[in-house]
Amino acid sequence: MIEVEVKARCSQDVLPKILDLGAVKKGVENHRDIYFNSPLRDFRITDEALRIRIKDGGARLTYKGPKLDIQTKSRLELTVEINDPQAMQKILVELGFRPSAEVKKRRTKYLLGDITFALDEVERLGSFLEIETPAEGDWEKKSLEVMNIFHQLGLGESIRKSYVELLEEQSLKESTNE
Amino acid sequence: MIEVEVKARCSQDVLPKILDLGAVKKGVENHRDIYFNSPLRDFRITDEALRIRIKDGGARLTYKGPKLDIQTKSRLELTVEINDPQAMQKILVELGFRPSAEVKKRRTKYLLGDITFALDEVERLGSFLEIETPAEGDWEKKSLEVMNIFHQLGLGESIRKSYVELLEEQSLKESTNE
Repeated sequence: MIEVEVKARCSQDVLPKILDLGAVKKGVENHRDIYFNSPLRDFRITDEALRIRIKDGGARLTYKGPKLDIQTKSRLELTVEINDPQAMQKILVELGFRPSAEVKKRRTKYLLGDITFALDEVERLGSFLEIETPAEGDWEKKSLEVMNIFHQLGLGESIRKSYVELLEEQSLKESTNE
Repeated sequence: MIEVEVKARCSQDVLPKILDLGAVKKGVENHRDIYFNSPLRDFRITDEALRIRIKDGGARLTYKGPKLDIQTKSRLELTVEINDPQAMQKILVELGFRPSAEVKKRRTKYLLGDITFALDEVERLGSFLEIETPAEGDWEKKSLEVMNIFHQLGLGESIRKSYVELLEEQSLKESTNE
């Protein structure tokens, strides 16, 4: 119910290091993520997220709570598989929620026990690695494990910003350069 | 996307009349319906409904808009099948929605073309028949068809109140009698 997660920009030479750890390729997914904002409070300020993810295998609705520490992206995560993302979007809109951003990416997943390595090619942003694992009361311990692996891979700075926030920054840069 | 629906109290002698029309038994379902109210507006006043229905075959989330006429219960209805009603409830609570009522019933369904006859045994309320059919722009025409069948069955007064409203009235009566 808590997702422990850390993220960094990466290049393709991180892949052999992930395989060296013993991780096994699980598959490739194309994600179209639609984010919604609440009529009650601004999720960009409260650090929450509500998202419909559409991928080949099916769709899901996910709520993410505020981040729990200052180093990782660990946070409460609740997910429901849904059969009809269009109907779900219409329900959210009737309830007052508004689509606020869309992220498209190609994710290649590698598994090592209960740790997932997600190599993301994000439209307009480039390559990222997310290392994540589910946790409960043990999230601080798991967070240390994940940070350990993060350092072993020799990754640069951990990024706590979401893809949505990075896309907003990107748009701002582009409009300033024009 | 619009559900045309009319409802009335009934006794068991309505069943032979439904079968006489040519309707065919489809099955029996046990429903546990959890209703939610919005933090933005009182759904009892706006005549909306947000519901998680849990039945043997799976769960679904449904939003119902305000009723469209003064005779039937016709209204916008949006439904999504969900794999995890507990997680869905937690997401709704995180988003500010609160469980407001619960309805348990045993529904026996009969089909005649695209018209469904739902014979409901509702806990604490008794027996009801709902006649319903999906519609789009043709909802007024379909509404007349359904009202026609309603009259053929010799049912009493059409009830536009929801089971939740009827249960609230029942509770009020019981507390007054004590």
